[in-house]
Amino acid sequence: MQFQLTDDFINQIEILIAKKDGNALRELLNEFHFADIAELLEELKSDEATYLIKLLETDLTSEALMELDEEVREKILDRMSPKEIANELEEMDTDDAADIIAELDENIQKEVIDKIKDEDHAADIVELLNYDEDTAGALMAKELVKVKETWTIAGCVREMRRQAKNVTRVHSIYVVDKEGKLKGRLSLKDLLTVSGKAHISDIYIPKVDYVTVNTDNEDVARIMQKYDLEAIPVVDENGVLVGRITIDDIVDFIKEEAEKDYQMAAGISQDVEADDSVLKLTRARLPWLMIGMMGGLGAASIISGFEAIFLTYPNLLLFVPLIQATAGNVGVQSSAIVVQGLANDTIKGNIIRRLLKESLLALINGLCIALVVLLISHFAFHTTYLESISICIALISVIILAALIGTFVPIILDKNGIDPAVATGPFITTSNDVFGILTYFLIAKLILGF
Amino acid sequence: MQFQLTDDFINQIEILIAKKDGNALRELLNEFHFADIAELLEELKSDEATYLIKLLETDLTSEALMELDEEVREKILDRMSPKEIANELEEMDTDDAADIIAELDENIQKEVIDKIKDEDHAADIVELLNYDEDTAGALMAKELVKVKETWTIAGCVREMRRQAKNVTRVHSIYVVDKEGKLKGRLSLKDLLTVSGKAHISDIYIPKVDYVTVNTDNEDVARIMQKYDLEAIPVVDENGVLVGRITIDDIVDFIKEEAEKDYQMAAGISQDVEADDSVLKLTRARLPWLMIGMMGGLGAASIISGFEAIFLTYPNLLLFVPLIQATAGNVGVQSSAIVVQGLANDTIKGNIIRRLLKESLLALINGLCIALVVLLISHFAFHTTYLESISICIALISVIILAALIGTFVPIILDKNGIDPAVATGPFITTSNDVFGILTYFLIAKLILGF
Repeated sequence: MQFQLTDDFINQIEILIAKKDGNALRELLNEFHFADIAELLEELKSDEATYLIKLLETDLTSEALMELDEEVREKILDRMSPKEIANELEEMDTDDAADIIAELDENIQKEVIDKIKDEDHAADIVELLNYDEDTAGALMAKELVKVKETWTIAGCVREMRRQAKNVTRVHSIYVVDKEGKLKGRLSLKDLLTVSGKAHISDIYIPKVDYVTVNTDNEDVARIMQKYDLEAIPVVDENGVLVGRITIDDIVDFIKEEAEKDYQMAAGISQDVEADDSVLKLTRARLPWLMIGMMGGLGAASIISGFEAIFLTYPNLLLFVPLIQATAGNVGVQSSAIVVQGLANDTIKGNIIRRLLKESLLALINGLCIALVVLLISHFAFHTTYLESISICIALISVIILAALIGTFVPIILDKNGIDPAVATGPFITTSNDVFGILTYFLIAKLILGF
Repeated sequence: MQFQLTDDFINQIEILIAKKDGNALRELLNEFHFADIAELLEELKSDEATYLIKLLETDLTSEALMELDEEVREKILDRMSPKEIANELEEMDTDDAADIIAELDENIQKEVIDKIKDEDHAADIVELLNYDEDTAGALMAKELVKVKETWTIAGCVREMRRQAKNVTRVHSIYVVDKEGKLKGRLSLKDLLTVSGKAHISDIYIPKVDYVTVNTDNEDVARIMQKYDLEAIPVVDENGVLVGRITIDDIVDFIKEEAEKDYQMAAGISQDVEADDSVLKLTRARLPWLMIGMMGGLGAASIISGFEAIFLTYPNLLLFVPLIQATAGNVGVQSSAIVVQGLANDTIKGNIIRRLLKESLLALINGLCIALVVLLISHFAFHTTYLESISICIALISVIILAALIGTFVPIILDKNGIDPAVATGPFITTSNDVFGILTYFLIAKLILGF
């Protein structure tokens, strides 16, 4: 059942576009799913894609536009007139339309909005543009089905038929009072199982989860996941129902957040894909490599500060990579667990207990590793008794230190309102490299007395 | 609106449980949302939690059970009789019930199933247990609303009222032929807007996305996301409609996959949370640390193999941490981008072009970093002209090597049916550490001629 985009098919489309054979293209593509059209558009050149957008039905192209990568969409919209863009927005849900408007240059935003024929639709879009990014207000759509608590079921079904035409998916019917304040909800299923003469007020469910326009996106996602909701109504400061958020927006949000965190942990500083340009990929990757480089040079300067090592204990230098790798790995493990716990809101209890637990954990891991290293260093690398002891004590200390840095840096960042995910990956690795090597030689100096 | 679980509240509940004050507990908790009950149960001792499960309404507790961490649930189910477990299963959707059965010891599975009163429900659960884990068959529920294409709308509404009682959420009404083969779908919204005398065959949408019982979970998630579906029907080999998968299951699946990948990248080998026991956390973390340790010891043996360094070029040793850190960071970046691309199915085009692109990218990053290192090593660390050149050429080579390893290992694993995510994090870091240091000294040897 799944559509597979082949090179042959793309070629065929490109030839038809070059011939400007609009009829053949319409015949071929108008029955496609918008997600497949979007996949096709991403493979075409911008002017070819723009040609198709203008050619095909707007109910299809408006949805396909929403599925595109922001950059691809930008190039297409650049080649469209305000009137043509407005036509696409006309077919979109208000939340999608507002997202598109926000992506446009400021000087044409107003022009596009003015060209939207449906005035209510335009007013709704303008309202959505006023909410802060990252809040429920910016995420919600104005499209929803609402009924008054005083109506009968029959009246309600009539009214719903009218409203439902503008709403792609009816999850719940929201019940409001005279002032538009949210009172409860009805499911479509409930409507099917009661008599037409009953009043809404007799059958609606007064308990309804909701968020306000100012609720943070992350909280919206958490609530919808926790309570398994497929849609959640949004109210303003006065409790008036102003919109709703559906699960598909949340699925996209969860996915994007997970990818952002993953890339951040891998030291990639902006959202990139494997197929992006070399320049964009360099911009995303070079900053963290530079920070890692500074750490490496810092480590070099630490080592050069312990001259005695080169003369008297060169064996210690062999274990620098071991110390560094272990410090890095422990730090990444600790920070990943904490960052994930913070994201899922499962980090509870007091900080001292967490400190003790993490230290205990590090001590156990450290002892296991140190024991192996003790034997191997002594027998395979012929380190002296004292050298082996120094290496092992340093290893355990470095593991504990790295675990504590990995645990506390994210918690402290989070307490100060900074995304703890920035503390993962290269950041933790680099600082642990430097601290680890410093600790190693300080402990060796203390024990060996150089 | 959100429920906040406080220590005071938990205390109050624990006191009531100790007093066995069932009435007060029922009064207090029966109006709660199941997700909040689950949060409470996770904070209680197993015997307290079990007491509550047995006490409260099964429509509430059966849903709460499904929200619990598997370990917490296991402890509670251990304290319940087959009959009591069967009572909970009676209230669950078939997919959830099958998941619970699969978690039970094999010797009581049959007993529990036998104790389920509703025979159809029990048969459906047994059917689901037969599908392979990780397939649509194991993910789907048997609950759905289906109608025959020959019926009238009025007849359809009557039949739906009957069926809808067992279905928590009606997303779509599936249309089947006489043999039960999937023909298309109707939305509840469509039913509201047509006359009762029309036939289903006149109004149903014959184009419907579906998967088969053997479709892989990841493909199901990809299809539902791509086409923004809230539910998808599942058919058997003959095209007969046998179940449906809803978006809430997919949300959970996406979240779990993202967390698994994230932990794998951080070198954590099994699913753990910050609040798990020290033993469990050690088991999850120690294996990767041991692999990192082997890498560190490997590096030590490489360094010890280049005796001339200690005697003639000790300066080179200062830059081992820099080489190692850079190799690790580049490898992690490259692998993260490829792993994410593979997961999203956006890695296309031929492998040679990707190789050239990744090399070019690495060359640019390498040149930038090498230039800075060239200056700093020469002026701050007083390396000789040839030493600086060696360090920089090694650095560029190591960056290219690390990028290629980071790019190709995941692609090769993926081609061989292995989850490419295992190649991220410590695995890439460790192998890059070792290859990086080896490359560094080989190049230095070549240039400096020791």
